[in-house]
Amino acid sequence: MPSGTLLYAQSGGVTAVINATASAVIQTARKRKVKVLAARDGILGVLREQLIDTSKESIADIRALAHTPGGAFGSCRLKLKSLEEDRAKYERLIDVFRAHDVRWFLYNGGNDSADTALKVSRLAAEYDYPLHCIGVPKTIDNDLALTDCSPGFGSAAKYTAVSVREAALDVAAMAETSTKVFIYEAMGRHAGWLAASAGLAGEGPDQAPHLILLPERTFDEADFLAKAKSTVERVGYCVVVASEGIRDADGRFIADAGGRTDSFGHKQLGGVASHLAGRVQDTLGYKVHWALPDYLQRSARHLASRTDLEHAQAVGTAAVEYALDGMNAMMPVIVRTADAPYAWKVEAAPLSKIANKEKTLPAGFIRRDGYGITAKARAYLGPLIHGEAPPPYGADGLPRYVTLKNVAVPALLAPWHE
Amino acid sequence: MPSGTLLYAQSGGVTAVINATASAVIQTARKRKVKVLAARDGILGVLREQLIDTSKESIADIRALAHTPGGAFGSCRLKLKSLEEDRAKYERLIDVFRAHDVRWFLYNGGNDSADTALKVSRLAAEYDYPLHCIGVPKTIDNDLALTDCSPGFGSAAKYTAVSVREAALDVAAMAETSTKVFIYEAMGRHAGWLAASAGLAGEGPDQAPHLILLPERTFDEADFLAKAKSTVERVGYCVVVASEGIRDADGRFIADAGGRTDSFGHKQLGGVASHLAGRVQDTLGYKVHWALPDYLQRSARHLASRTDLEHAQAVGTAAVEYALDGMNAMMPVIVRTADAPYAWKVEAAPLSKIANKEKTLPAGFIRRDGYGITAKARAYLGPLIHGEAPPPYGADGLPRYVTLKNVAVPALLAPWHE
Repeated sequence: MPSGTLLYAQSGGVTAVINATASAVIQTARKRKVKVLAARDGILGVLREQLIDTSKESIADIRALAHTPGGAFGSCRLKLKSLEEDRAKYERLIDVFRAHDVRWFLYNGGNDSADTALKVSRLAAEYDYPLHCIGVPKTIDNDLALTDCSPGFGSAAKYTAVSVREAALDVAAMAETSTKVFIYEAMGRHAGWLAASAGLAGEGPDQAPHLILLPERTFDEADFLAKAKSTVERVGYCVVVASEGIRDADGRFIADAGGRTDSFGHKQLGGVASHLAGRVQDTLGYKVHWALPDYLQRSARHLASRTDLEHAQAVGTAAVEYALDGMNAMMPVIVRTADAPYAWKVEAAPLSKIANKEKTLPAGFIRRDGYGITAKARAYLGPLIHGEAPPPYGADGLPRYVTLKNVAVPALLAPWHE
Repeated sequence: MPSGTLLYAQSGGVTAVINATASAVIQTARKRKVKVLAARDGILGVLREQLIDTSKESIADIRALAHTPGGAFGSCRLKLKSLEEDRAKYERLIDVFRAHDVRWFLYNGGNDSADTALKVSRLAAEYDYPLHCIGVPKTIDNDLALTDCSPGFGSAAKYTAVSVREAALDVAAMAETSTKVFIYEAMGRHAGWLAASAGLAGEGPDQAPHLILLPERTFDEADFLAKAKSTVERVGYCVVVASEGIRDADGRFIADAGGRTDSFGHKQLGGVASHLAGRVQDTLGYKVHWALPDYLQRSARHLASRTDLEHAQAVGTAAVEYALDGMNAMMPVIVRTADAPYAWKVEAAPLSKIANKEKTLPAGFIRRDGYGITAKARAYLGPLIHGEAPPPYGADGLPRYVTLKNVAVPALLAPWHE
């Protein structure tokens, strides 16, 4: 049994399959006889020395993580700044690692987390503390550099494509006397990957979604409204998928129209879909409906992509192997070796080439008119939603999601003051 | 082969399983060697003499209807008024029936449709036209009288409970540094059945959903905000499920706060969840997120309840049998014969006892504090989400939903002027 502890932490927004990565990490480490601690609420739990002893969990519960959405140990939104600005925090991390004999640190997150893992690894070297830092990819935004895709994205993409296809059937059935324009708001503040994946729901100019609004293209309201109108006149209705990150020519987020006030004099929270719905109704006079799935799109484990699940498990397994085999400042990434039939493998990539980068939709994925996706995009996106991996359901008709015991490891250091 | 035609029409908002009813209607009628026409866009298609010849569809496609959401022939929102006020329309219906030898009329809808079917049956009798009118129950609102539940509701309820359970896991994982209050808006303008069904996602004071806002109870903002605050302080986060139909003490719909204007000076469409989110953020200062699934909740065939699907098929089959056996002005309803294990049967009930009635949540289903459901509600709701009935998926990772050919029957009458 190797001496030392492996510490696993989740970071940033959770996904339908990040716990599948955690499950693979813990199972692989157990096979290698390595003790695994998990940080409560991500890096915050390291700073606070709130660690969880995963050896207290049954193997059945660890396996059940693979079909449970959310973040089993808690995650957090906490971006560490530069080593200079946040030195005290980085040093505290090393102190906690040292106190608990952490030799392997696995940080499961997106761009920011890759950056944090890289900095931690540099500081450890500076202090001569023997630590192997491995980033583990995860984000529904699919904006991580180098990796062909990010675990979590495929399931959110499948949710998006299926939901848009289903809602479009509803709209089509009712359009003659009811809603003519339906707007679905997809997550993606800077990159349009999820909105683009809605394009898989249909093909050709008359199939929904008819208009996809991507943050990679400037939003032109007049042009959008004209296209919505001509679609309604041609098809009978219009299904729009809008990325939350679209901006106008002045660079203003449409979602931040801001300062809305309702009749009670209260500020109103907005969003892209609600704003566009108002504009369609006011200018075109159509009945309009809109959906904002919000967290539903990133927690819909019931509709996970099997491909995505397999990616999530594979990067978890590889991350443990990389760490125990002595790699440092690396991340297992997904490499596509063929589109059709889809084939992929996991390879190691340096965190320095991933940290703080952001991958947006390539121009070649966006239809010339800006409102749809190309065959190239379909070839890329298609395989990522392939296959189903439903969770087991209980006799009560609900998925059997597991809740871990999350037994705390006693703190050894003085409390940390934020 | 009985002489005459059976006409089937869908009415009002569609559901995840209304096509399963259509599938059962057509299959049962085919077995009895009866010709089935379907009205395009519901009763509007009858008025316009836009009828579809279902004999042109393959048996495989008719079977596939059972796993396809939306309304395969189109539905409509068109409430006929009294026989006096809308006499010309009722007479037109009889004219179209006569022209196409329609002897059996099956109208698949909610309260209003039951009323229409009843009136049509009365007018036919008045004109000595031999017609058997059968209402077929359907509505995600579950507000139909007499029947134990309405086909379509169970699947929407399952979608609601599963989605809230999944989103709650997301919120729980992130609450320490991110969203503390999450608000899910459920359909149900007058009855809180869907919001109540979210209660199946958890049990006890600390499990999500923590607060359910029902239209059957007056919304008291100060009390709601105090409860949200105490929940966050106790649990770390608060998941709220709000029915779109909640009203304040003056009877005003919270969703109709109305008159919102954004910073561009445009009117903003609102909703209950967006309004409540603004109030929580402004008064409690918590980070808040909200979801509005809108049509997704009534078209999510991928997450249908098997029980609901079986109900939908059974009422379709029974409706054809009732009609062909000579019943008139009746509706097949679901009768519950036992809670645990759940048992049910279909019985005939007179449309006169169903038309224009609205079934709201019984007081005994609502927790004393007004923000949750009772054991009695769980016993009622639980069985309705039992069992899964996923659609087949294609190699592309998407459900294989069918699109019918919908071949038009040539019109025999002069065009109708609305």
